[in-house]
Amino acid sequence: MTRTALAILSRPSLDAPAHDGAIEPFALVDPTSPQLSALDLAATRGDGVFETISVGDGRPQALEPHLRRFARSAATLDLPAPDVDAWREAILSVVATLDPAPEAAIKTVLSRGVEGDGRPTGWVYGWIVGDHSRVRTEGVRVVVLDRGYRHDVERTSPWLLAGAKTLSYAVNRAVLREAARRGADDVIFVSSDGYVLEGPTSTVVYRRGGALFTPGTGLGILEGTTQGSLFTFAEERGMSTGYELLTPAELAEADDIWLVSSVRHAAPVREYEGRPMRVDAEFTAAMNDYLRTRVD
Amino acid sequence: MTRTALAILSRPSLDAPAHDGAIEPFALVDPTSPQLSALDLAATRGDGVFETISVGDGRPQALEPHLRRFARSAATLDLPAPDVDAWREAILSVVATLDPAPEAAIKTVLSRGVEGDGRPTGWVYGWIVGDHSRVRTEGVRVVVLDRGYRHDVERTSPWLLAGAKTLSYAVNRAVLREAARRGADDVIFVSSDGYVLEGPTSTVVYRRGGALFTPGTGLGILEGTTQGSLFTFAEERGMSTGYELLTPAELAEADDIWLVSSVRHAAPVREYEGRPMRVDAEFTAAMNDYLRTRVD
Repeated sequence: MTRTALAILSRPSLDAPAHDGAIEPFALVDPTSPQLSALDLAATRGDGVFETISVGDGRPQALEPHLRRFARSAATLDLPAPDVDAWREAILSVVATLDPAPEAAIKTVLSRGVEGDGRPTGWVYGWIVGDHSRVRTEGVRVVVLDRGYRHDVERTSPWLLAGAKTLSYAVNRAVLREAARRGADDVIFVSSDGYVLEGPTSTVVYRRGGALFTPGTGLGILEGTTQGSLFTFAEERGMSTGYELLTPAELAEADDIWLVSSVRHAAPVREYEGRPMRVDAEFTAAMNDYLRTRVD
Repeated sequence: MTRTALAILSRPSLDAPAHDGAIEPFALVDPTSPQLSALDLAATRGDGVFETISVGDGRPQALEPHLRRFARSAATLDLPAPDVDAWREAILSVVATLDPAPEAAIKTVLSRGVEGDGRPTGWVYGWIVGDHSRVRTEGVRVVVLDRGYRHDVERTSPWLLAGAKTLSYAVNRAVLREAARRGADDVIFVSSDGYVLEGPTSTVVYRRGGALFTPGTGLGILEGTTQGSLFTFAEERGMSTGYELLTPAELAEADDIWLVSSVRHAAPVREYEGRPMRVDAEFTAAMNDYLRTRVD
């Protein structure tokens, strides 16, 4: 039984030297053994970027959009550009190592490496995911929490790294604990000037008048790879799609809301700030069927 | 020659189970070998806290204030409380392992551990520090950069973890790269509503009219352990000290500014937003002598 697998890249970027003694582009290693230096900037400063990629029936989904976003996040952090071919090869090898399963997931991590060493660290972790069917059908209770930043910081203050998927996710974890304290399961962030942003590990998608929307890009939020797939799904069904700057009060007027992400897929919001929301079981199931079986 | 040392705690908190097979409270391990799991939340989410402690002539300085701040940061992140006695013992053992040197440093890290495991990870890393005498005498060129948060987020939005020393420090590193792009060496953060906060790894201390000041506490910034020592230094010399909420323009009117931190000690600001500042060499040297030789 191989339910987890780990590959360490010997040369995560062609712009930086390889690690000593490396011949192959990556090595499959024991995921239960220590593999990282305690001096790695991933562990001491959250100084790196990551992606989480779903694997449906052995195929990584939206792999190229994820690899492109990975490279964009790296560029935002002034990290050496990932060698996309080496990463893709490592990802496919990790997937092939896992036992066959309907749903698995991959995490790619690129860190600045050991301080002063000048070589980034890269690894690919794969695992067979548990059953998300309950959250996909019953949905989540959501509270709105302040993200602290104005909606325009990505433009005014790029050093805040808003919009990059960094390893510095302590806040994204802390808000889930705050949600639990408030009797909720998940969070939608609002900017300090009152606009809907994203979830801590998801994109907000909502339906109003038969059209599918998501908050606009350039708000210091991640460009959603899963949201992109859902927009394709909607357009194939003749629905229009769009981007909107909106407030939490306006979002409350939506017909349906979902939190969408790579591994959990589309989780319908069944409670928003304490008020029940309808869950369209049929449409949500169609979304999740599409996401689970997409080949892209 | 032992210029670095590493100890892994077997039970970083009495509120969580020990790691398997642990008998001693900590183990000295090879700092050049991998010691961390790639699944540790330190490395994947920056989900933990740290302290950096200076060691002068073999004595950790301000050790108890650092351990108290470590515990406060852990509490802010809902981490299990560090077992302060075990951490102190590990710190002293790491210090004793290092070659004798006038200046060394210790980093303590407490992370939430491997996801789902329920046991935090803790380590103590020690190293002999390089020569900081140049930055302590010549000083640093500083630019002011937006921190993105209002000055009151610590009170309004505690889930943003402002004021805790977390491992999610990617922004604190990014601003130093932005400073370099602007021809500067270091940064002073300003809140989104216009108040002076702190440096990315330092506290702002300034002198005006013969009194020593620092921005007030409760601004979502770290309580400075080194700043605390410097206030004692100033008071022993008959100077008054105080806390002030002030703007970057008001700070520019100070007679002197320093960025103070555990390892670098007091670095005088010789250029502030492109304008030269005077550096009081004698007073700065007295500050640094005090910090280097303090026994507390």
